[in-house]
Formats: sequence, C-alpha cells, structure tokens
Amino acid sequence: MRIEQRLAERGLVLPERMKLPPGVTLPFPWVRIRDGRAHVSGHGPLMPDGSLPPLLGKVGAEVTEEEAYEAAASTALAVLASLRRALGDLDRVTAWLRVFGMVNAAPGFTRAPAVINGFSDLILDLWGPEAGGHARSAVGLAELPFRVPVEIEAEVALT
Amino acid sequence: MRIEQRLAERGLVLPERMKLPPGVTLPFPWVRIRDGRAHVSGHGPLMPDGSLPPLLGKVGAEVTEEEAYEAAASTALAVLASLRRALGDLDRVTAWLRVFGMVNAAPGFTRAPAVINGFSDLILDLWGPEAGGHARSAVGLAELPFRVPVEIEAEVALT
Amino acid sequence: MRIEQRLAERGLVLPERMKLPPGVTLPFPWVRIRDGRAHVSGHGPLMPDGSLPPLLGKVGAEVTEEEAYEAAASTALAVLASLRRALGDLDRVTAWLRVFGMVNAAPGFTRAPAVINGFSDLILDLWGPEAGGHARSAVGLAELPFRVPVEIEAEVALT
Repeated sequence: MRIEQRLAERGLVLPERMKLPPGVTLPFPWVRIRDGRAHVSGHGPLMPDGSLPPLLGKVGAEVTEEEAYEAAASTALAVLASLRRALGDLDRVTAWLRVFGMVNAAPGFTRAPAVINGFSDLILDLWGPEAGGHARSAVGLAELPFRVPVEIEAEVALT
Repeated sequence: MRIEQRLAERGLVLPERMKLPPGVTLPFPWVRIRDGRAHVSGHGPLMPDGSLPPLLGKVGAEVTEEEAYEAAASTALAVLASLRRALGDLDRVTAWLRVFGMVNAAPGFTRAPAVINGFSDLILDLWGPEAGGHARSAVGLAELPFRVPVEIEAEVALT
Repeated sequence: MRIEQRLAERGLVLPERMKLPPGVTLPFPWVRIRDGRAHVSGHGPLMPDGSLPPLLGKVGAEVTEEEAYEAAASTALAVLASLRRALGDLDRVTAWLRVFGMVNAAPGFTRAPAVINGFSDLILDLWGPEAGGHARSAVGLAELPFRVPVEIEAEVALT
C-alpha cells in the first residue's frame, strides 16, 4: 500500500463518492476496467463529503488561475477515490498513460496547462516520474457540467 | 445477432452512410480496428438516408435539451451503423470502454451530461449494464462541424 | 528508414524540441509508450527551431482556414519530431489509431474538419492509407494554450 502511505504522509484524504445534485442522472461507471487498462470518466473537484465545491465558474473570471490549480489537485483526489473504489488498491495502477485536462475557460484565458499542472504535479509526486508520467493535453472548454472549473479524464495501466 | 434483434424489437433502424455536404472531404475511416479494439471517429446525428438532420445549432439556444437528447440517441445509431459496416456484426462489440460526448453549447448551457445520456441510455439498453458500461465525459464545445448539436467519439473492445 | 526517406523526398524537416515561453512548466512527456502503444500529448505547430510560430489566434478571425490547414500540417511535423525522439525510428509506428484535432475556433467557425485535414493528409501521404488511417474527431475549442490555432493529440500502435 505504497500510494496510500504517500497520501497519508502528505495529509491527503480522498473524497467520498460524488453526491449528485438533484435531477442529475449519470448512468455510467466512474472507472471502466478491461484487459489491464482502466479508462477514467471525466471528474471534477469534490469536497471531502463528495459534494461540489463552492468555487465554481469560469477560470480567468470567477475563478483565478491559482484557485483552478487547486481545483485540479482536488480533481486528482476525486479520480484516485474512484480508482480505489474500483480497484481496491491504488498500487494496482502501474502507469499513468493519458490525461485530458479540460478547463472552464473565460474568454481569453489561455493558461490551461498551468491549471492542469495541479493534477499532474500531484500524480507525479505520488507515483514518481516513471510510473506517473503521462501524455497530456490541457485545453479550454466552452462549458463544463455543474460549472466546475476543471474536468479531467484519464487512462491508466493496471497490474 | 443479439444486438440486431434488440434494435428490431425497438423499431430502431440504422442510418445509411453519411452523405457529406458539398466541398467536404473526410480522409479518415469512421472506425479504426486494431488488436481487439475499435476506435470510433466523432459522429453526429444523421437522418435515415445519411443526410444531416434539419435541427442544427447550439444547445440551449437553437436546440432544446430534450431535442439534443434525441440527437445524442440518433448519434448512437450513426455510430452503430459505422460499427456494423466495419465489423459485419454488432455482436462483435463485447464491451464499451470510453465515450467522449461533445455538446455544441450555447453560452451558459452546462447540462451536457443530460444530453449525452441520450447516447448512453441507448447503448446500455442494447448491451446491458455489464457490456454496455463505459467511462464517459460530457462537455460543452465552442463549435462543432456542420453545426451538429452533438458529436460523440468512442472506443470499444471486440471479440 | 522508410518514413525518414519520404520526409526527405518531400523536403520536410522536423522541428527541434519545443522552446517553452518563459514561466511555462510542462511536467509530462510528449510521448508515453506502453505495451505496443504510444499516447501522444497535445501538440501545436512549431517553427523549425522549436519556437512558437508568429501566426497565433482564433481560426476564422486572426487565422484563415488555409493558414490553419498549414498549421495542422506543421503540428504533424511537431508530433513526428516527438515520436522520433521517443522511438528512435518513425518506422516503429505501424498504425495510426486515433487523432483528436482541436481548432481554436472563432465564434461561428465550424470548418474544423477542413483544418485538421492538414494533419491527416500528411500522415496518410507518409504512411499510406492502411497504416496511416485513423479514427478522428475535429472540433472547435474555446481557448488553446499559447493561442495556437490548432492542437492535436494522438494514439499510435508500435512494432
């Protein structure tokens, strides 16, 4: 339980399962496992109890770049929580492969990579540069569900 | 031919191959098969004869959420038509892995998940929750080709 | 070195590694290899020396469709440069699988497919229709990093 230990050493706690707002149905799994790979659905940041954070909206307008970096780190914790529920043990993730980082961009906000670094930096810190390295895109979307500032999907290799 | 039978039972007919508007060249295949996986190119809704539907434009402005849900279901039929042409038999799709749902979002339209449920609900109905389950993102794009309200790409596992 | 020879025959030169603008940190690899597949991070067009091209901004406003087609071809060269650095030999790419083409779209610009053809046409010319064929989406994004007119990510199969 190497990754669990690193999370504990850093004082990081994974959030509970997402509490969906009223009237929302998401009929798909958060993680899809097949043949040694897991596809991870698009996640946004969560509060520890699984509710949406209060800071929502467009990055570069309602949300600053620094706040969005923290939202991307929070999104990493939400992804790890889903992976732990699906896999039982985060150590089963032997390599990060692909990260697609979507920023809820206000007009003219072009610093999506600096925002999504909040996700990448945490994954690299926990898994190290070899297992944690990942191909990545970080781009500005027109609108994101629930007005989350960041949404991230991923693909990982499993043991 | 289990999936074919379910389509027939529901009265669903797969559209013909897309009729491209004049001046449009798409030099790539709709489905790319390799090593037991198929990557599916971005598809939009089609009329039964393969032409673009009359209802185009931004969801939340020219197109309602309910109409866009139906467009996502129509997009699922277009994807299934391409898979059937490429595979010969839809029963060769043993698992849905990843669905990336893109909504042509009017400013402020954040209910992309409710729209893309039109795709997911049909796939889950046809394949069942185990084979039909898929990792998914559903997000708002700035502009989509041909002003389609919905575009969806996917990855599936094959037998 | 079949692909190298075709590049030389066409007078095409791959750009140097991207020179990041001041203050930008990208903590991930451009290419991620695992189990016979390579995921390619989102790339934009580059000058031969690895710097950003002077023509930046939104397609349909600051950048014409024709200029954006050339930017997509330039992006293909940047992707090939990263693949050559990661693989040693471009002939190790035995099949293109997935191309996700993102256009920095001005409001109302819906011709993303015509733009991303600049990437697809070059890949198909170099690898031929069988190995070069790829599933593709081409869509309009709200904002792209560094205001590049085009960003493209990909997945390829390796020998």
